[in-house]
Amino acid sequence: MVNFELTREFIDNLKELIENKNKEKLGEIIQDLHPADIAEIYDELNVEEAKFLYFLLDDDKAADVITELEDDDRQKFLKSLPSEVIAKRFINNMDSDDAADIIGDFDDDRKQEVLSHMEDVNSAGNIVDLLNYEEGTAGSLMAKELILVKENWDIPTCLRSMRKQASEVDDVYYVYVIDDDDVLKGTLSLKRLLLSSPKAIIKEIYNSDVISVVSDVKSEEVSSIMEKYDLVALPVVDHLGRLLGRITIDDVVDVIREEAEKDYQLASGITEDVEASDGVWRLTRARFPWLAIGLAGGILGSRVVNGFMGNLGDHPQMAIFMPLIAAMGGNVGIQSSAIVVQSLASGDMGIDTPWVKLLKEFSIAIFNATILSLLIFTYNYLIGSDMALTFTVAVAMFSVVIFASLFGTFIPLLLDKIKIDPAVATGPFITTLNDIVGMFIYLSIAVYFFSKIG
Amino acid sequence: MVNFELTREFIDNLKELIENKNKEKLGEIIQDLHPADIAEIYDELNVEEAKFLYFLLDDDKAADVITELEDDDRQKFLKSLPSEVIAKRFINNMDSDDAADIIGDFDDDRKQEVLSHMEDVNSAGNIVDLLNYEEGTAGSLMAKELILVKENWDIPTCLRSMRKQASEVDDVYYVYVIDDDDVLKGTLSLKRLLLSSPKAIIKEIYNSDVISVVSDVKSEEVSSIMEKYDLVALPVVDHLGRLLGRITIDDVVDVIREEAEKDYQLASGITEDVEASDGVWRLTRARFPWLAIGLAGGILGSRVVNGFMGNLGDHPQMAIFMPLIAAMGGNVGIQSSAIVVQSLASGDMGIDTPWVKLLKEFSIAIFNATILSLLIFTYNYLIGSDMALTFTVAVAMFSVVIFASLFGTFIPLLLDKIKIDPAVATGPFITTLNDIVGMFIYLSIAVYFFSKIG
Repeated sequence: MVNFELTREFIDNLKELIENKNKEKLGEIIQDLHPADIAEIYDELNVEEAKFLYFLLDDDKAADVITELEDDDRQKFLKSLPSEVIAKRFINNMDSDDAADIIGDFDDDRKQEVLSHMEDVNSAGNIVDLLNYEEGTAGSLMAKELILVKENWDIPTCLRSMRKQASEVDDVYYVYVIDDDDVLKGTLSLKRLLLSSPKAIIKEIYNSDVISVVSDVKSEEVSSIMEKYDLVALPVVDHLGRLLGRITIDDVVDVIREEAEKDYQLASGITEDVEASDGVWRLTRARFPWLAIGLAGGILGSRVVNGFMGNLGDHPQMAIFMPLIAAMGGNVGIQSSAIVVQSLASGDMGIDTPWVKLLKEFSIAIFNATILSLLIFTYNYLIGSDMALTFTVAVAMFSVVIFASLFGTFIPLLLDKIKIDPAVATGPFITTLNDIVGMFIYLSIAVYFFSKIG
Repeated sequence: MVNFELTREFIDNLKELIENKNKEKLGEIIQDLHPADIAEIYDELNVEEAKFLYFLLDDDKAADVITELEDDDRQKFLKSLPSEVIAKRFINNMDSDDAADIIGDFDDDRKQEVLSHMEDVNSAGNIVDLLNYEEGTAGSLMAKELILVKENWDIPTCLRSMRKQASEVDDVYYVYVIDDDDVLKGTLSLKRLLLSSPKAIIKEIYNSDVISVVSDVKSEEVSSIMEKYDLVALPVVDHLGRLLGRITIDDVVDVIREEAEKDYQLASGITEDVEASDGVWRLTRARFPWLAIGLAGGILGSRVVNGFMGNLGDHPQMAIFMPLIAAMGGNVGIQSSAIVVQSLASGDMGIDTPWVKLLKEFSIAIFNATILSLLIFTYNYLIGSDMALTFTVAVAMFSVVIFASLFGTFIPLLLDKIKIDPAVATGPFITTLNDIVGMFIYLSIAVYFFSKIG
């Protein structure tokens, strides 16, 4: 299977075929494509075009494509379809976790309607169960489809039962072993199943070293457990240890990327999960809030500068290094906070106490601050700036770098402690506050030196 | 299995037990731990302590722990061991991809020595093969261990052969189907194997829709393919389509996280992959280069301000809004470039041409710039700033936001075009250049308005 690459020509050609209602040619084209590729194509079509193409797909593929669509595209598309079609063509052919994700986005009436059209009462029940778990927990990530065997079965019984169950489950990575009370005891790998004598009882061959999570564990913890222990599937249990479902790695890969991207976006002052391919309005909405905060912070900063207007009038050369000091404070603060935010996100904070961490940051800051001060001092000395300015800039550089480092480390640690996502702090607050405080430090030091030497 | 959490008390207790050489108690403690947890503990021990603990582990677990260690800890630890121990205790018990990663870090003599001590010539050969693939390609990520069946076998032959092969392979997710020339034909899922009649021939039941990559494909592409198509394992082939190995999702999860974190770190001005738990020197080394670039850029910026010294002397109030304009230029530039960098990294750029993208960015910029200008104009009007300053700030805000948006979009697109990692651009160049150009724009506009109205 060749890797598909979406091009403008391909889309234009497709749109033309849709306009001419050339079902035969279209069917040929999309038959060979993976659902994920078809979902990408949908991104580029309008709802009417998408609908036309959609009804050329067989039910299984149609359900897979719906699962792969981006949230807002999917909602827009599903809104145009009757509940019965959604239930019979899509939801019936999906894994329970995907079905619950989709139905969870509907309002209560629509939910009810779609569920009532489902043919299989058992699947409908599974979906209703899953809808009860809170967003962002292990329960909301799991699927109900899994292959179960009891610990006192022998291998032939086990294989017979697995054969029956397998028709319901798409990917079989592990077989879960439970006792008579449905409590998870361990897993049985395909390897063990292949290598054991047919007379063996499951109890004798299963692996009891199974890692599981309780359904109310947060998704971030789920992803860090799966990542740390290199798991492909993670069973979810209730507080009595009874097996409820399993989370597969493909859902967690999305959580991992989204987490990492979210931190980066927040640090860059973007408040929603956006892509370059999103619409202008959505991109603007994601960007404007932080610009407004930046503006408010900048206005406060301008008040600080305004407070020193008399001094600036006497010694306008003070203004020369204002942008430099502000920029360095910002740079150092962003570095410090990015390291803390990332380490908190990946769970790799080490075992140091917050005080030890601040002390460590302080030593790094002393080093950087000293070198940067010496460099800027030498520069000013060499170009022959006046002495007051030379001293001001060097001392201010030192102070601002130290302050911004400690501040950039302390704020995310504090936010994490009081259970606020520290990623929020990196962009907006740290840059803006560093700017304001940096200006104040710089101009105060300037006033001192200019009154002494100037 | 309970999730293990590392604490200071645990480490102190462990260090004491090691000092007292209490093998029995230590053995009890580490026996129950997962290799990934033991690797975390190693992070906190010195080489001698780690070595003592190490020789209490059985060979399989010892090999797993080595695989889980961070690169530099592992290198430090292995340096202290003779080649024979490394070969027999560790490399012999590892999957070929992990073994190749570790041996790849040795110098040529050590490589030779370790390989010569390996008992299994076949595994040694696999490792040597893997060492030939370039770092950062599919070949360097793959393992040689996989389960193969031929397309003309029947199910009993297939099961017999799988049983033999399974003892070598840790995780069996897919069985790969090849023809007589070793060319990859497709996969056989456990599900199909369970559901098919014993008389079936593999040719009749395998799934030919297999996605594969050629060994020289870049790791980023491997991770985006596995993520897009939700794959747990991806077969790697040569240019003739012959099966060489497979890449498993756990290795790719690391690539995905590292990629996303690297972009964030570069955007924050951190040049190496560091964690909060790394040493002071390493953290300093990762941070200083960008601070030095920032300093150089800031000095250039100060030259720009210096060029307007006469005007600043006449109208020192010009200085009041310098930090605000610099900050807003920086904010907008970082937002614009972060969106492009992330979309490039996740492959979700849509099908627009660069010109359409710039046009879109331009419409967002016009919107933001207009609102921000109006806000700052109103603010200055209300607090009664003088007219020249009020107009200067509003017009400069508009111009700087537009400029920074286009610049922040254009630079990463350009870098990507000429095959330089665009993430490099986000932090250093864009912020610094925006500062310099922003100051120039602001002060030039100020000179204009103050000469007309001031």
